[in-house]
Amino acid sequence: MKTIRMSIIGLGGRGTWWLGELLKMEDVQITAVCDKHEDRMERGRRMCAEKYGHEVYGSTDWHDIVALDDGAEAVMITTYWNDHVKIAIAAMKRGKYAAFEVGPAQSIQQCWELVRTYEETGVPAMLMENCCYNREEMTVLNMVKKGLFGELLHCQGGYQHDLRAVADSFKDDHERAWHYLHRNAELYPTHELGPIMTYLDINYGNRLMSLNAMATKSRGLNKYLREKCDGHPMADADFRLGDIITTTIRCANGETIVLTHDTSSPRPYSRGGRVQGTTGIWMEDLHGLHIEGRTKGEVWEPMADYWEEFEHPLWKKSRATEYTGGHGGMDWLVMRAFLNAVRNRIQTPIDVYDSATMMAVAILSEESIAEGCATKSIPDFTDGMWMKREDGPKSIFSLHEVDETLFAGDVEF
Amino acid sequence: MKTIRMSIIGLGGRGTWWLGELLKMEDVQITAVCDKHEDRMERGRRMCAEKYGHEVYGSTDWHDIVALDDGAEAVMITTYWNDHVKIAIAAMKRGKYAAFEVGPAQSIQQCWELVRTYEETGVPAMLMENCCYNREEMTVLNMVKKGLFGELLHCQGGYQHDLRAVADSFKDDHERAWHYLHRNAELYPTHELGPIMTYLDINYGNRLMSLNAMATKSRGLNKYLREKCDGHPMADADFRLGDIITTTIRCANGETIVLTHDTSSPRPYSRGGRVQGTTGIWMEDLHGLHIEGRTKGEVWEPMADYWEEFEHPLWKKSRATEYTGGHGGMDWLVMRAFLNAVRNRIQTPIDVYDSATMMAVAILSEESIAEGCATKSIPDFTDGMWMKREDGPKSIFSLHEVDETLFAGDVEF
Repeated sequence: MKTIRMSIIGLGGRGTWWLGELLKMEDVQITAVCDKHEDRMERGRRMCAEKYGHEVYGSTDWHDIVALDDGAEAVMITTYWNDHVKIAIAAMKRGKYAAFEVGPAQSIQQCWELVRTYEETGVPAMLMENCCYNREEMTVLNMVKKGLFGELLHCQGGYQHDLRAVADSFKDDHERAWHYLHRNAELYPTHELGPIMTYLDINYGNRLMSLNAMATKSRGLNKYLREKCDGHPMADADFRLGDIITTTIRCANGETIVLTHDTSSPRPYSRGGRVQGTTGIWMEDLHGLHIEGRTKGEVWEPMADYWEEFEHPLWKKSRATEYTGGHGGMDWLVMRAFLNAVRNRIQTPIDVYDSATMMAVAILSEESIAEGCATKSIPDFTDGMWMKREDGPKSIFSLHEVDETLFAGDVEF
Repeated sequence: MKTIRMSIIGLGGRGTWWLGELLKMEDVQITAVCDKHEDRMERGRRMCAEKYGHEVYGSTDWHDIVALDDGAEAVMITTYWNDHVKIAIAAMKRGKYAAFEVGPAQSIQQCWELVRTYEETGVPAMLMENCCYNREEMTVLNMVKKGLFGELLHCQGGYQHDLRAVADSFKDDHERAWHYLHRNAELYPTHELGPIMTYLDINYGNRLMSLNAMATKSRGLNKYLREKCDGHPMADADFRLGDIITTTIRCANGETIVLTHDTSSPRPYSRGGRVQGTTGIWMEDLHGLHIEGRTKGEVWEPMADYWEEFEHPLWKKSRATEYTGGHGGMDWLVMRAFLNAVRNRIQTPIDVYDSATMMAVAILSEESIAEGCATKSIPDFTDGMWMKREDGPKSIFSLHEVDETLFAGDVEF
């Protein structure tokens, strides 16, 4: 089994966690680590030294890491959102596969540059949307592909996550504070939009055509900071982000999507998934299904009754290993999918077109809100290729069959 | 107890059911019945004769009933949607309180005419939105007014009702067939929008500002008629109504609303209610609440745990009578509320401004869809009065206190 050499840039909480996971994988060799804060970078170097018994290169400047001629085939990017695409493009230009954590794009132009860089260099890049690999979403994907819902009509999802406690640590250089202070937008659409795009074959015979976005007033963060964080300097700050953002999207094939961003109010976590077609409906909040011809009466059936028949084969296999990893296993799956592509020098299962499409929704939602919920066209980053594109057997966006190679690694669990 | 004399126009299924209910009320005297179909009108007359032991007037022309000088103080209108406002206006001009069943307006102009007729005649009219009086919605209203959710941010609701079987009886003069064939719109918003307007004090210090609507493709009715109704003449008809319509509304005070119209797909019935504020959330599909300071942990609490403390006093009193009536009791409550207004010559709890606002959403959603999910302004039918309007103690739209007079009738259960 060939070892994959890769570097990692950005060692905050998420990056450091990823480094630990990558160090557990026997088929991965970390060649260099980077963070703009020297202490974090040095902590990363120590983690590598403990595992490998030798020093690895470290730098506080990501340009050094990307330029390094150390045989690295891939770079994992876990920096602030603002830098994801910039670093990915630099890595691709050096022939290195780029994986970057989820987050919004900063401009539509940036999305195009990501796409063009791939087309010019042939080097793939992947937005690491872990929820595409979550157990319930993948099982729903399997149901969709097996026709359980008939012809799809409508999907919903949300990033509904009470993150108010994070505000306690808000300061000038806190990423979420920047965005919440300055941007009124669907800032974080990919956790729900990623899986929905797989259900709807987006960029494979279908595409996102247009969106409209609407924001509530902003109340939650000021209320929390005033009441729970005595004397916090941002207690009276003018947070521009509405507490709840609703985005509606229309697809080329006539389906609609509703997304909800809801992070500043008290509530239990939910991605609020819903898939509805001509023969059935799934609702994540109920973990329930109603399938014509199967469900008896006008009731919901528990998802639990469907696992055995419909659990996605990747998950059946994954669970058999008794590995769970981060976020219930989906982090491990998304990384193994990326590494598989690197090893075999093939396209990543989420490619630059999918990544650009997902990331663009944040920008366009911001423009729509600024223009009074105006209808914004979503660019076709495939330049028309989506109409005649063959299903990519390696693409989770058109995953009809299990790709066993995703699990070919001799992985230490 | 003074008897209220009233007539009823439109004796299809719903009208005939209402006639039966009204005949049970000892403080109501039906003076005349009307349906354009003579057989239905005569059936209505027989129902009255059985109860009263004497004949009542009948006509197949609603103009006759409205013009009748029979001492009737009110008219109940249960005709096709297209005729609701037209007949209501004619009745108001004759000094008769008008109650009309739910349904969309046919033009914005018609909504204005309803409002102006009230302002010119002083005679109230009421859209009989029964869901405003449903047990769970009224209890949520009570929670809202008691501040359980804090400052409101976002509400959702839907008319999610698999009505495909109705298509079997579609023919040229079938009302739903007309609308489904010709209109791509949020045709039936009031069951969810009515209660939401009560939560948000719409037309009492707040108002609906603008909306955007988006439709899916149309599949369900053709599929159903082809597969389930052999040789049906409308099997290949071009139904313009999208299977699922999503409407987003922004309010003057910064809250947002999402409405869903979903009647042509297999699914369990749900109005999909959701109310979210700075301190809590209610979800109807879960019959669950999460209230900061009450709920322990990041979980949903069952609504059942809140009934005792928060059930709306009107419902506590109503249930004590062990009366259930139509649709779980809400039909009875909405009618008693209307009759109370007639008896006391006061404003109806849902007035012409509220009725026009609710009905206008259908028209504007149609325009929005036709214009590519364009932003449509919602008229202020109060001509600015909403800003300084006092809470109407008789209005369910600003119901802080129980109005005991709603239950003053010596009613036979």
